[in-house]
Amino acid sequence: MPFTLEDLDARIAERASASADVSYTAKLLERGIEKCAQKLGEEATESVIAAVTGNKAELTKEASDVLYHLLVLLRAADVPLEAVMAELEARTAQSGLAEKASRTAQ
Amino acid sequence: MPFTLEDLDARIAERASASADVSYTAKLLERGIEKCAQKLGEEATESVIAAVTGNKAELTKEASDVLYHLLVLLRAADVPLEAVMAELEARTAQSGLAEKASRTAQ
Amino acid sequence: MPFTLEDLDARIAERASASADVSYTAKLLERGIEKCAQKLGEEATESVIAAVTGNKAELTKEASDVLYHLLVLLRAADVPLEAVMAELEARTAQSGLAEKASRTAQ
Amino acid sequence: MPFTLEDLDARIAERASASADVSYTAKLLERGIEKCAQKLGEEATESVIAAVTGNKAELTKEASDVLYHLLVLLRAADVPLEAVMAELEARTAQSGLAEKASRTAQ
Repeated sequence: MPFTLEDLDARIAERASASADVSYTAKLLERGIEKCAQKLGEEATESVIAAVTGNKAELTKEASDVLYHLLVLLRAADVPLEAVMAELEARTAQSGLAEKASRTAQ
Repeated sequence: MPFTLEDLDARIAERASASADVSYTAKLLERGIEKCAQKLGEEATESVIAAVTGNKAELTKEASDVLYHLLVLLRAADVPLEAVMAELEARTAQSGLAEKASRTAQ
Repeated sequence: MPFTLEDLDARIAERASASADVSYTAKLLERGIEKCAQKLGEEATESVIAAVTGNKAELTKEASDVLYHLLVLLRAADVPLEAVMAELEARTAQSGLAEKASRTAQ
Repeated sequence: MPFTLEDLDARIAERASASADVSYTAKLLERGIEKCAQKLGEEATESVIAAVTGNKAELTKEASDVLYHLLVLLRAADVPLEAVMAELEARTAQSGLAEKASRTAQ
């Protein structure tokens, strides 16, 4: 069974309750939402650089960092991943309807 | 069955081959990797602002934008989402081993 | 006499009191500090992309945008440019002393 | 005589030729343009956070960091500060003309 974003989120929830001495996740959450937000910004910039310089191996790592730090930030902000996925599902359904309507209109 | 990041990625793959006239995704990819990277940077900044100002509804939307634009950027860069998820799984396994080792050592 | 950052700041102060209908600066300030901050983030990302892709003409424009939007953000936050320049002067003096000390120690 | 952006740029030019062992500027330039760009992105994000959370003392420091790292990036990219200031002067002159024209048209 492939590893999913939900698996990562469950792992982050588990680590969040560990001691900040042994868990990077717990330490980051302890430092507060501004630190978590700062990390997301940093990793996004690093993904941008890896992408536009054509460094695929680096982009794979930086994109992983973006996903991890986005989930940590959502946790710090008390926004469940489910709410974000529901938003994406609603948008996808909407763009699907728009597409169908545009096909019918032709 | 809940909507997943893989569902979003499949949808992006589908839209990528549509006309840039009807699909925002196709249009973005047509504009090139620098434009896709720029969008990721923008959405990350907006997520940062929503998070640190405590705007949960806005963060839900901006986090959705980050996920969507990250997947579009991966596609523009020809890096499969599977590679990113495999990287995250490997890191999670590694941190799990480190944790077990630290428990055993006590 | 060359154009300075202080000239740009004076110009921004002047435009800030114009109508938002005719002045982009006034409009931006009217939209609030979050919008001003968002613009700084965007222009920084665009400078990053221009720099790492070796696009000097684009970097010249994007760096101009960073300076302009940084000054607008400082104004929105009510932080005088003088305070920032004083901070930079203090740091420069300090690193000069450290350098002198390291030369003396040899 | 107040400290200017040109003073900072002159200082950076001076430090650029020092040993990377004693100069942070020299070390940063030695690490290459991607590292310099990454730092600009980081400091911009930190300025955004300081601004929207209303932390003026922090914003003063982070804005200083943005100016310093922008100048280092311009040096790494071989774009003279003069070119950026000339761009800003041209824009200011242009917006001044547009303003005058709009006043005359009323």
